[in-house]
Amino acid sequence: MKDIVSLCKRRGFIFPASDIYGGLNGFWDYGPLGVELKNNLRDRWWKDMVLCPPIGPDGNPIDILGVDSSIIQNPKCWEASGHVGGFNDPMVDCKESKKRYRADHIKVFIPKDGEGVNIAFDKDAEEDVIASRLKKLAKGKSAEDYDVTFEKIDADQMANTVGPDVKKPGSLTEPRQFNMMFHTYVGATAGDDNKAYLRPETCAGIFLNFKNVVDSSRARVPFGIAQVGKAFRNEVTPRNFVFRSREFEQMELEWFCEEDEVPMWFDFWVDERTKFWESVGIPKSELHFLDVEKDELAHYSSRTIDVEYRFPFSAPEFDELEGIAHRGCFDLTQHQEFSGTKLEYFDQPTNKRFMPHVIEPSTGLTRGVLALLCQAYTVDESRPSGVYMDFHPSMAPKKAAILPLTAKDEHVPIAQRLYLSLRDEFAVDLDIKQNIGKRYARQDEIGTPFCFTIDNDTISDETVTVRHRNTMKQERIPLDNIKPFLRAEIGK
Amino acid sequence: MKDIVSLCKRRGFIFPASDIYGGLNGFWDYGPLGVELKNNLRDRWWKDMVLCPPIGPDGNPIDILGVDSSIIQNPKCWEASGHVGGFNDPMVDCKESKKRYRADHIKVFIPKDGEGVNIAFDKDAEEDVIASRLKKLAKGKSAEDYDVTFEKIDADQMANTVGPDVKKPGSLTEPRQFNMMFHTYVGATAGDDNKAYLRPETCAGIFLNFKNVVDSSRARVPFGIAQVGKAFRNEVTPRNFVFRSREFEQMELEWFCEEDEVPMWFDFWVDERTKFWESVGIPKSELHFLDVEKDELAHYSSRTIDVEYRFPFSAPEFDELEGIAHRGCFDLTQHQEFSGTKLEYFDQPTNKRFMPHVIEPSTGLTRGVLALLCQAYTVDESRPSGVYMDFHPSMAPKKAAILPLTAKDEHVPIAQRLYLSLRDEFAVDLDIKQNIGKRYARQDEIGTPFCFTIDNDTISDETVTVRHRNTMKQERIPLDNIKPFLRAEIGK
Repeated sequence: MKDIVSLCKRRGFIFPASDIYGGLNGFWDYGPLGVELKNNLRDRWWKDMVLCPPIGPDGNPIDILGVDSSIIQNPKCWEASGHVGGFNDPMVDCKESKKRYRADHIKVFIPKDGEGVNIAFDKDAEEDVIASRLKKLAKGKSAEDYDVTFEKIDADQMANTVGPDVKKPGSLTEPRQFNMMFHTYVGATAGDDNKAYLRPETCAGIFLNFKNVVDSSRARVPFGIAQVGKAFRNEVTPRNFVFRSREFEQMELEWFCEEDEVPMWFDFWVDERTKFWESVGIPKSELHFLDVEKDELAHYSSRTIDVEYRFPFSAPEFDELEGIAHRGCFDLTQHQEFSGTKLEYFDQPTNKRFMPHVIEPSTGLTRGVLALLCQAYTVDESRPSGVYMDFHPSMAPKKAAILPLTAKDEHVPIAQRLYLSLRDEFAVDLDIKQNIGKRYARQDEIGTPFCFTIDNDTISDETVTVRHRNTMKQERIPLDNIKPFLRAEIGK
Repeated sequence: MKDIVSLCKRRGFIFPASDIYGGLNGFWDYGPLGVELKNNLRDRWWKDMVLCPPIGPDGNPIDILGVDSSIIQNPKCWEASGHVGGFNDPMVDCKESKKRYRADHIKVFIPKDGEGVNIAFDKDAEEDVIASRLKKLAKGKSAEDYDVTFEKIDADQMANTVGPDVKKPGSLTEPRQFNMMFHTYVGATAGDDNKAYLRPETCAGIFLNFKNVVDSSRARVPFGIAQVGKAFRNEVTPRNFVFRSREFEQMELEWFCEEDEVPMWFDFWVDERTKFWESVGIPKSELHFLDVEKDELAHYSSRTIDVEYRFPFSAPEFDELEGIAHRGCFDLTQHQEFSGTKLEYFDQPTNKRFMPHVIEPSTGLTRGVLALLCQAYTVDESRPSGVYMDFHPSMAPKKAAILPLTAKDEHVPIAQRLYLSLRDEFAVDLDIKQNIGKRYARQDEIGTPFCFTIDNDTISDETVTVRHRNTMKQERIPLDNIKPFLRAEIGK
């Protein structure tokens, strides 16, 4: 993972936000290549969802409309969704160190003999750290003399527990709720009347607009509403690069259908979303479909599948890339109740009025970018860069680099003409200076699938050398064939 | 303006945010057509800036790189930029009505004879409102008996002033500073140490990344960094639809060059940006170039031009659509000082080290969308809809509608095949039901430039009727010619 983070900064994919100020924990900026990679994934999702949605089970294209809602909405919206009351992690504060810990990230060592203090550790604490702390805090005892628990312990036990970063017991509080929504104040005064929240997920903006979309468009159930946008969560422990950050982007679809069609559409969306990830270069072998167990589902849901990817930090296991959830009619019902606005759908042909059920394929755009980066990262000690990024050509930030062999003679104007003839259709890089090996190495590291080199033969026979990124194989093709060549390769 | 707002809601361009909860002042959501219109403008700007930047004065394309930075940055960034200290409007509070007014939006009537109370009004108060309040509060006096001032008045005078929404003097405070940045808290506690801000403009994210972009790319001065993204300002009086909203989107370019080239590049950018607005359908006759006067410029700026558009609410005058500002080397210098990170640029060929100067063409994406909507809105009482949206074809949310004449016979499969053959390249609408007149009316209102109608002749001779939105002229063209026809029309 460290190598990927380092390449991302070195080559301009992802920088720490406010880097020159020492950063800000949980926030990241996308550099010149990162923003193109992210836009490619975003635009592909939007195209596959909104502009050219899939063909449905009846052989006709299904209907999906886009929206783009505000990050700040009326705060009542988050009461209805349950985020004001429930979007909490139980947290434990240390009054001495002033640190705050997620309750389920602390493990407590409790002496088997009931003698002496309990000792709390970070859940990931290494064995040698544990041994050395035990030595200091409880002479003569070792790990075997303790029971270990992650469970909530009672107040007496808590008072007798030494926090992870202090030396004496009594500084830890009981676990308390901590809301993960960022709040702000809209209007002149910073009082409770003006309190508002940054959305913790984009889907609420879809439910809020359900009625306006139905009233203003010709969409009829079943249909979907899609949105791409930023969301914010005040994570206590942001980690794993952009995987769990405090500001991130989501791509969410809410698919509205009748209740009895839920199983059919659920399978449809699992299938479509799998095809999507494969088409952008994530092989099915690196995906895992976690069918969330019945007793872990929300009360309104009949099924949820987490599409997981084998991230380097979770390998050999997987971590969540996308969630496909049946949400029942929970959201529309809640918003109807809290807003007092009727949100039931009236179906003219059948004269029925009902609350549509919802299937939600919800993915992280920034998490998707991370999966593309991890999947592409390929060590190859045989080449000068030592590594190349094996992006699917359709996702690669640059589709091709145009490299005049030398910077000083007739190669340059040919390269410039080629660049101008391609750039309207393909994201291409014109790179004139440096020796050709270094330029190839750079293109390998940024994942450009093809390099076109202009040399003396180009002048005589109007061909260029194509260098293939993954194989480093070189072949010559006519200048005139470059466009059809790129179209074919990117469309693969 | 009212008619435009109403059409925007009725047809799905723009809805009030949290509409079902009664909205939230200053926030707007983009509906299915609005998001496509906004994406079209965003993508065109990105293409013209980052993917295919203009040809520079030397005949070669200039170099512009994109970034996408966080909305929340290290708060020190906003101290450096001056926003924490200076991004303020002087405000007057009314202790009785609990309302807050911008100090320069209140006019105070002061009795010429010095007898009786001063009376404050909203700056836009109508004559009859003024007359009726004077009648109630100062019997026997009329507007002629008062001097009117917008200036700050002294504390004694203020104490003797009746606020705009109350009946007795003494409730208005002195003007006080009110920071327009939204604040929030990052991390576990809501204390000053954790205070952070939602960015009030996107450009700061560019300056923060200047060094990382230079270090990770091959860009050399002169070059630009571009960004599109959301920004937030806690406006005291959001108004004029999406023109002055609290959450909005910007498209900003920072062009880095040497100081002595500033005049040349400044003219270059004014010219390029004018061409841009013309190319998306804003005629030069509706634009006004306000050369900001020397004594109103910031100390570091030698020139600023506001590109203004004749919005309906400002007509016959203009209001700001884009600002093109010379910002000197103010921002990089400030960030260098506050961060302690060297931001000077080293120019290898000349062995010079210097702080680049910056020219900033900064435009509102959402404001641009409003200009496109206002420009397109065309009353035409001769047609059933009474109005059509005259979008430039490249900006229209839908390029064409495919309309089978009847919903029940062989017209539909032909229409579906045509739809599938076009949708990969063009945003097209397939609309099957309703009588053809109503469908034309709907397409007029959403600004679709072309309707292709499939009828019985289509079956026999493989031609369709093309209806042109603006002229309502109809002609027949072969099915096979539709793609080249659309390509040509959209490229115009």
